[in-house]
Amino acid sequence: MHDFAFDSAVRDWAGVVGHENIVTTASQLVAAETGTFQTGNRIPAIVRPASREEVQECMRIANRWMVPVYPISSGRNWGYGSRVPASNGCVLLDLGRMNRILDFSESLGYVTLEPGVTQAQLQEFLAAQNSNLWMDSTGASPHCSLVGNTAERGFGHTPYGDHFANSCNLEVVLPQGEVIETGFGRYPGAHASPVYRWGVGPTLDGLFSQSNYGVITRMTVWLMPAPEYFQAYFFKCAAEEGLPDLIDALRPLRMNGTLRSSSHIANDYKVLSALQQYPWKQTAGATPLVGPLMQQFRRELRIGSWNGSGALYGTRGQVKEARRLLRLALKGKATDLQFLDDGKIALASRFAGVYERLTGWNLRRTLAVLRPVYGLMKGIPTEHPLSSTYWRKRTPPPQQMDPDRDGCGLLWCSPVAPNEGSHAARISAIASDVLLRAGFEPAISMTVLTDRTLSCIISLAWDRAVPGEDARAAACRNELLARLAAGGYHSYRLGIGAMGAMGEDGPYQQALQSLKQSFDPNSILAPGRYITPRTTGLDVPEDTFSASSTKRIDRR
Amino acid sequence: MHDFAFDSAVRDWAGVVGHENIVTTASQLVAAETGTFQTGNRIPAIVRPASREEVQECMRIANRWMVPVYPISSGRNWGYGSRVPASNGCVLLDLGRMNRILDFSESLGYVTLEPGVTQAQLQEFLAAQNSNLWMDSTGASPHCSLVGNTAERGFGHTPYGDHFANSCNLEVVLPQGEVIETGFGRYPGAHASPVYRWGVGPTLDGLFSQSNYGVITRMTVWLMPAPEYFQAYFFKCAAEEGLPDLIDALRPLRMNGTLRSSSHIANDYKVLSALQQYPWKQTAGATPLVGPLMQQFRRELRIGSWNGSGALYGTRGQVKEARRLLRLALKGKATDLQFLDDGKIALASRFAGVYERLTGWNLRRTLAVLRPVYGLMKGIPTEHPLSSTYWRKRTPPPQQMDPDRDGCGLLWCSPVAPNEGSHAARISAIASDVLLRAGFEPAISMTVLTDRTLSCIISLAWDRAVPGEDARAAACRNELLARLAAGGYHSYRLGIGAMGAMGEDGPYQQALQSLKQSFDPNSILAPGRYITPRTTGLDVPEDTFSASSTKRIDRR
Repeated sequence: MHDFAFDSAVRDWAGVVGHENIVTTASQLVAAETGTFQTGNRIPAIVRPASREEVQECMRIANRWMVPVYPISSGRNWGYGSRVPASNGCVLLDLGRMNRILDFSESLGYVTLEPGVTQAQLQEFLAAQNSNLWMDSTGASPHCSLVGNTAERGFGHTPYGDHFANSCNLEVVLPQGEVIETGFGRYPGAHASPVYRWGVGPTLDGLFSQSNYGVITRMTVWLMPAPEYFQAYFFKCAAEEGLPDLIDALRPLRMNGTLRSSSHIANDYKVLSALQQYPWKQTAGATPLVGPLMQQFRRELRIGSWNGSGALYGTRGQVKEARRLLRLALKGKATDLQFLDDGKIALASRFAGVYERLTGWNLRRTLAVLRPVYGLMKGIPTEHPLSSTYWRKRTPPPQQMDPDRDGCGLLWCSPVAPNEGSHAARISAIASDVLLRAGFEPAISMTVLTDRTLSCIISLAWDRAVPGEDARAAACRNELLARLAAGGYHSYRLGIGAMGAMGEDGPYQQALQSLKQSFDPNSILAPGRYITPRTTGLDVPEDTFSASSTKRIDRR
Repeated sequence: MHDFAFDSAVRDWAGVVGHENIVTTASQLVAAETGTFQTGNRIPAIVRPASREEVQECMRIANRWMVPVYPISSGRNWGYGSRVPASNGCVLLDLGRMNRILDFSESLGYVTLEPGVTQAQLQEFLAAQNSNLWMDSTGASPHCSLVGNTAERGFGHTPYGDHFANSCNLEVVLPQGEVIETGFGRYPGAHASPVYRWGVGPTLDGLFSQSNYGVITRMTVWLMPAPEYFQAYFFKCAAEEGLPDLIDALRPLRMNGTLRSSSHIANDYKVLSALQQYPWKQTAGATPLVGPLMQQFRRELRIGSWNGSGALYGTRGQVKEARRLLRLALKGKATDLQFLDDGKIALASRFAGVYERLTGWNLRRTLAVLRPVYGLMKGIPTEHPLSSTYWRKRTPPPQQMDPDRDGCGLLWCSPVAPNEGSHAARISAIASDVLLRAGFEPAISMTVLTDRTLSCIISLAWDRAVPGEDARAAACRNELLARLAAGGYHSYRLGIGAMGAMGEDGPYQQALQSLKQSFDPNSILAPGRYITPRTTGLDVPEDTFSASSTKRIDRR
């Protein structure tokens, strides 16, 4: 690559998006290069197109000058890479200005979005429409992009929690600038485009999730009608070895449709890190947090080894029956099964003291963490879970949290397993072993994502200000991925430093590479994102930590 | 193409599958070339591999000698092409011998199948396992392939009715002989392969449905746990213009999860053709059936203009609540709402006369058609709906029905629409207009396939023995597709003579063609199936009727 090419590309991009939408200021580029873990990847510029047509033109220019680009929607892919490209030297294609809500149907329950639309924006839109529809929200932040999360196949906590399964009708700018619309979207005036996933002929949506085959510039997201009645449930299990029984008790209710949404089971570390920061004083600065002290926290804060939550959606009659079945299923396996609805939670927060004397349940302390979780199950986005990224920091989370800026170390590892207790126990054991030995607290949640699958999220949190911690965390994550894979557990999603976990060269990787060649012969779009180049010999999980092994470009 | 190449390919294939699994007998080939509508496409040979390895070898040989092959599973794609390839001169790759059930989990509710496994075979397997799982069955025939139907994105009548949405973990032989496994299947020992659809990285399953990009040699199909209680419902609407209200009344119940499966609403013609053959005597041989005579049938047989069915699945409590909500929703919109369970149907069939006096409902006559429908909603396959393909024949359906052999004319047209009454009415109006003007009875069903979509099936049935009818039917189907498309309604599935409905050359078609080029540079696999060749200038919907426009190969 030559600076001439880069400069020419920037000039041409500026002609399309305007100079004011090209960022080359060093401080802003450094900020964009800073995620929640270390990478060596530099960003020479940021380009901010405002429309699909501008994206098309930007892609043509990228091909003309052979300058790779990397699209982001809101760039809040925390724990997996934030805004940082998967390889060095990519210009960021920031789609945040494309934030129109293009279509909406109250009766059919959908909304069609551009990639810049955030969770908060959709929530406000629905409120403004007096809509009876609920969105599904991730716990990440109100400012996360819905399209971005869905393209990454993220999940939330309502019956529409499997985001990718509840989307369709993509508009995709292919790497060389052509536009395709998936499903029936390619037929002008086709009524079923926003409602029917498959269209006719091969279904292409899946190709553009977790890939670098195209830039999604439009997506329809389905929304659920608000139920007549909503009730959340919470339960605990004191014994660490009680997890498998919980999972196995919930499975039949999920599979028979009684539970229409995920149950979410978090371990003690996960709950503690949602309630407070690392207890530096009590531990006298020692890490990790283990033993009697951890037991003391559990006791004092009434945290179980496992802490479950979920919700029931339906008519009063449907919820009542589901409640009966849930009580029956969890009997002898969980304790403190509590059902909360809007009325009860309002009452309880007003009379938390009385409530505690009556039920033995300390609502005051847990309401702080409980209320955002309760809201998430109604699809209401929240900043709250973000505070746990400050777990190991020595200063409290600021009013405006920004884990990238604030040096919060965070890596997520997200293995998927069959919805059976034995698998949950095995993953938990592997994660606890690997993380504790490396000096980190294994904060784990098990989400019953679909009838048949558990999505396990393992958080690795540290303070990036501590010298050496970045490298130790990365090594720990790599060991965790390897141990899980050896045990038969693979992640549903990968961070930018972990794309090597996609696998060895073989027919599957070759098929992915052939598709890449077909869509993007110049490999100009998000190189290294999920589709790793053929036989590089690079140990990709580690390459972000050995900057010398990647072609470094620094034009500043 | 040269006969030398073809002979060499046959010789090489025989070396792989054995001479006994190569069919070149003229009578058998002619039988395979005969579907339920006219095509000019000839089949020079049939090759019957027994394993994935043999399929791989067969594909390599096809490429070596440049002889195109066309895979079928059970070949019962009636109304869309039966066993007949989408283009002339393809050797049939008959996967019927690959009929192993490879994996099964009672607790996670899945079965992993080869393409030759039929609905009846799976049903027997589940019975032999004393399984508490229900399969989902199409109405086509117990001898249909599950993999074949799922790859075509067919549907059934239980909560798992959207077959493709309830499958994953494909093993695919690519056109040049490599094998890939989709989702997590590519990782040896990955536990989540049969339970989690998406895997990691781009999701490829959709590519291999309704396409010619690979031969599916394995698929996991999810099975539902039998509910504690099952109750079917049936209702009617006398007025033809009552359809929109029915659809709009059912939608909220489908969208809020009260109805977990499709509701199926059939018009009078559809029901009549399930009950009996064309009334040649009463019409004195005139077609189509219209006016006072049709009204008389409706009256006598107590058929509504629209006739609904569906089922409730759950605990007794859940079903009771669903029943309450369904009654409420259909009040004033439907009549004769009846709920049937196993006990009631057994009783009713024993005391049909009494039942009729009590309820005014003639069970005796309708039980014949009702029982198979009732069974289908429990996933039990049936031959019964096949009898309607004999609608216009002058002789009754034989004991062993075979629409291909028996000259039953059948074309299906299957537009998808948003789940709103106005769309249902518009499609019904278009179909009735086009078919009646062409002299055919518009047998129509509207299936509430998903929360948001109607799948409308329009059957065009005729007697192939009547000279000129084949051509008239084809022209009628083409007009129907064109009229529907002009109205914004496109089919979820296409027959082999209708692939031109995939659309004009444009970026989407070009993307499909590029993918084809990438997977199958020699265009050796099922040429013309969904992915139509670039700029042929052919009017593909009609090409099967103008044999001269296709390269004809007849080696016999």
